[in-house]
Amino acid sequence: MRLSAYFLPTLKENPSEAQIVSHRLMLRAGMIRQTGAGIYAWLPLGQRVLKRIERIVREEQDASGAQELLMPTIQPAELWRESGRYDDYGKEMLRIRDRHDREMLYGPTNEEMITDIFKNSCKSYRDLPKNLYHIQWKFRDEIRPRFGVMRGREFLMKDAYSFDLDAAGARRAYQKMFLAYLRTFARLGLKAIPMRAESGAIGGNLSHEFIILAETGESGVFCDRTWLDLDVMAEAPGFDDDLERFFARATGIYAATDEKHDAADCPIPADRLVSARGIEVGHIFYFGTKYSKPLGAVVAGPDGEPVAVEMGSYGIGVSRLAGAIIEASHDEAGIIWPDSVAPFQVGLINLKSGDAACDRVAAEVYGDLRRAGVEVLYDDRAERPGVKFADMDLIGVPWQVLVGPRGVKSGVVELKRRATGERAELSRDSALAKLTGPA
Amino acid sequence: MRLSAYFLPTLKENPSEAQIVSHRLMLRAGMIRQTGAGIYAWLPLGQRVLKRIERIVREEQDASGAQELLMPTIQPAELWRESGRYDDYGKEMLRIRDRHDREMLYGPTNEEMITDIFKNSCKSYRDLPKNLYHIQWKFRDEIRPRFGVMRGREFLMKDAYSFDLDAAGARRAYQKMFLAYLRTFARLGLKAIPMRAESGAIGGNLSHEFIILAETGESGVFCDRTWLDLDVMAEAPGFDDDLERFFARATGIYAATDEKHDAADCPIPADRLVSARGIEVGHIFYFGTKYSKPLGAVVAGPDGEPVAVEMGSYGIGVSRLAGAIIEASHDEAGIIWPDSVAPFQVGLINLKSGDAACDRVAAEVYGDLRRAGVEVLYDDRAERPGVKFADMDLIGVPWQVLVGPRGVKSGVVELKRRATGERAELSRDSALAKLTGPA
Repeated sequence: MRLSAYFLPTLKENPSEAQIVSHRLMLRAGMIRQTGAGIYAWLPLGQRVLKRIERIVREEQDASGAQELLMPTIQPAELWRESGRYDDYGKEMLRIRDRHDREMLYGPTNEEMITDIFKNSCKSYRDLPKNLYHIQWKFRDEIRPRFGVMRGREFLMKDAYSFDLDAAGARRAYQKMFLAYLRTFARLGLKAIPMRAESGAIGGNLSHEFIILAETGESGVFCDRTWLDLDVMAEAPGFDDDLERFFARATGIYAATDEKHDAADCPIPADRLVSARGIEVGHIFYFGTKYSKPLGAVVAGPDGEPVAVEMGSYGIGVSRLAGAIIEASHDEAGIIWPDSVAPFQVGLINLKSGDAACDRVAAEVYGDLRRAGVEVLYDDRAERPGVKFADMDLIGVPWQVLVGPRGVKSGVVELKRRATGERAELSRDSALAKLTGPA
Repeated sequence: MRLSAYFLPTLKENPSEAQIVSHRLMLRAGMIRQTGAGIYAWLPLGQRVLKRIERIVREEQDASGAQELLMPTIQPAELWRESGRYDDYGKEMLRIRDRHDREMLYGPTNEEMITDIFKNSCKSYRDLPKNLYHIQWKFRDEIRPRFGVMRGREFLMKDAYSFDLDAAGARRAYQKMFLAYLRTFARLGLKAIPMRAESGAIGGNLSHEFIILAETGESGVFCDRTWLDLDVMAEAPGFDDDLERFFARATGIYAATDEKHDAADCPIPADRLVSARGIEVGHIFYFGTKYSKPLGAVVAGPDGEPVAVEMGSYGIGVSRLAGAIIEASHDEAGIIWPDSVAPFQVGLINLKSGDAACDRVAAEVYGDLRRAGVEVLYDDRAERPGVKFADMDLIGVPWQVLVGPRGVKSGVVELKRRATGERAELSRDSALAKLTGPA
C-alpha cells in the first residue's frame, strides 16, 4: 500500500479526551475514530489489526474443536425472560422496540440464544459434546464509557458455548478452552495469566479470568515469577491429549488480583512474588445447568432418561485486545506491534521522494517485497524524513526499510527493527532474504 | 470435518413458513435458524458460505483500490438530522434510545457516517481520490420481513463510498465499482446484468442495479441474449486500464426490468430478446454533492478554493447473496453450490460405516484430502446410504466421493459431480489428483 493513497489520518497532537496510552495511540495512529459515546469506527489501519487478532482467535478455537457459527446482534426479549436475566441485567442492556412495538435488545452475550438453538436441534447424548462459538459485535450500555476500545459500548467479542452430557465432559471442554486461551494470547505476543475468578452475573461453579501483564494495566496483580518464564507454546499439550496435568500445573502456579491477594497469607516466598499491573482480556465459566434447565436444553441419555446438558461459556474481548496489546507494547514514539498482529510487516521509507534514483530503488524494493507476499506500507509521500520516521514509529510496523541517496549509491538499504531500534545496512538481497525468510 | 461431530441440523420436511426455494433449502440444509422476525442465526454450514461470499466481495473491492474499514452498527441520530434523512427514512429505521435518552439508530446504510469521517481527515484535493468500504451488519425494520435471508431485517452488506474532486473522477470511481461488481458476481458463479435504475432514497444522477438471473427470481427482466453469452472475466479490463470502452459496451447491451421494458418500443429484435426472472444483489449510485454539501465535506482544490467532494455509494447484499445463489443454482434434491462459495469442496460418504475395511479406506481418503488442503465433510455416521446421499445432495457440496465395500475390494472409489450427477469409478490416486489438481 502506498501511503500517499492510504486513508491514514494520523494526529500530531495528543487528543485531550484520551486518558490512557492505548486510546491516545490508536487515535494518533489513525486506527480508530469515535462516532458516538463509547462507539468507534475502525479506520483501515485499525481494521487490519482487528482482522489479524480475530484470525488468531479463530484458528485456536477451530483447533480446539469448537465450531463457528454467527448469531445476530438483535435478540428477542422473550428469550431473556425465560432465563430470568431480562430484568436482572439492568441498564447495561440496550433495549429496543421495533415498529410493531416488539421488545428486543442488542445482545450483550448469547447464553440464552445459543441454548435455544442447541435445544431445537440436539436431542440425544449422541449429539454431544459440542462447542459452538461466534465472533460478533455486542453492546453494553456502560454508564460512563471510556478508555477507547478498552471499555467501549459496541465491542467485538468471541464467545463460545460448550454442551456436555456430564460434569466430567464439561470439565474437559473447560480445559480445552483454557488451553486455547493460553495459546491464543501467547500467539498475540502477550503474557496472559489465568486467575481464579468469581462467576458473577453468568453464574456457576468454576471460572477463570485471563489477565495480561501491562505496565499501564487497569488493576494490580500478584503472581509467582514462574509465570514470567513459562513458555506456554512449548509446554502446551495437544487438544486431544490428557489436559488434566497441564491444567493442574497452570492453575497451581500462584496468581491473584490485588482484591484477592493477602500478603499475610501468601503461599509463596516474597522473593518469588511479582507485583504487576494487568488487563482482563478473557473470561471462562463452567455453570452446569444454569441455562439448560430453565430453557429446557435436555437430551436423552444413554439409558433414555432426560438429562439437562452441562454448559460453559468462554469469552475473549477481540476489539479490547487491540487496545490491550498496545498497553503491553509501546514506547514514547508509539506502538510496537508484535509480528503476529501487525497491520503491515514492513514499513518502507523513501527518504527522498522525488529523487529519481531513490524513487526507482524504493519502487523496486516495494515490488520485490510484495511479490514475496510481504505486506508493505510504502511511505512515498513528499515529506521530510523526520515526519516519515515519526509516523512509521507511531504506527509501530515491526520492520522499517529505509531507502536514501547515500545507500542507493552504495547499493544498500537500512533495516530497522521497531521494537529494539537496532539498525543495520544490508544489500537489498540480504534485506529481502531477512524479511521474507523464516522468522 | 466429521459429520458425526458437526453441528448440521438438517430437516427432512419442508418448513411450512418458507415460501421460496432458497429459504426452504437454507432451513432444510441446516444453514440458518430464525431467531426473530426477519432475523437469523447462521449455523456452521451457513456461516462458511457467508464467509466465502464475503471473501470474494472483499478481494474484488481491494483489487479495485477501495480500502476496507469498519464502521459501527449503532449511529447517532444527529448525523442523520444533518443530512435531512432522519425524518425521511420512516419506520424502516430502527430508532433506539440509550440509558441517557440519547437518540441513536441501527444503521441501515452509512452515507452520513462515512462523509463525517472523511471530512474530519481529508482537507485537500491531494487526499483524493478515496474509496472506503466496509462489510457490516445493517438493520432495516421491514414491515413484513419474509423470504428468509433474501428480505431479512438484520442483514450483512458491503457498502463502499467514493470521494472525488470532480465529476470526471467520480465517473471513473463509478466505473471501477461497476467492473468490480461484474467480476464479483461472475466469480460467485452468477450471471449478473447491470440495469439502469432510479436512485430513489439515496438520491443522485446515475445508478445501476445488478440483477442476477434465476428462474425463481422475484421480478421479471428482459435482456439481449448477448448477455447470456458474455464472459465478463474474459472481457474485463484491468482496474487501471481505460474503463470507458468496457462501460460503454456493458451498458450498451439492452437490459431492463419489466417495469421499464416497453415491448412496443424495444430497441432489439424479438429473436434476440430474452425474458427471464431476476434478483437484485447490488446497487451503485453516483450522487454528486448530495451529502458532501449538507455535511460539509469540502476540500481545498488545486487553486486553494473550497470544493464539495463528488461522491458515490455502492452496495452488495452479502447475506442476501447466499439466498440468491441458491435461487440460481439448485434442483429437486437440494442446493448446487458453485465451487467458489461451497462450504466444503468435497463430501466423503462412507457407505458402510462400521465395516472395518470401509472405515479404514474412508479415513485414509479423508486424511489424504485434508493433507492436500481440500475442505472435506466426511459422513462417518451410522446411517443408511440413502440418508447419506440425500443429505449430501441437499447441502450441495460440489464433489462427492463414495467409499463402499465393492470399491474397497477392487481398489476404487466413486466420484460424483453434484451439479451434473456424473459418476465415475476411479483409483484413489486418480480421484485425489482430480480433486486437488487445477480446476
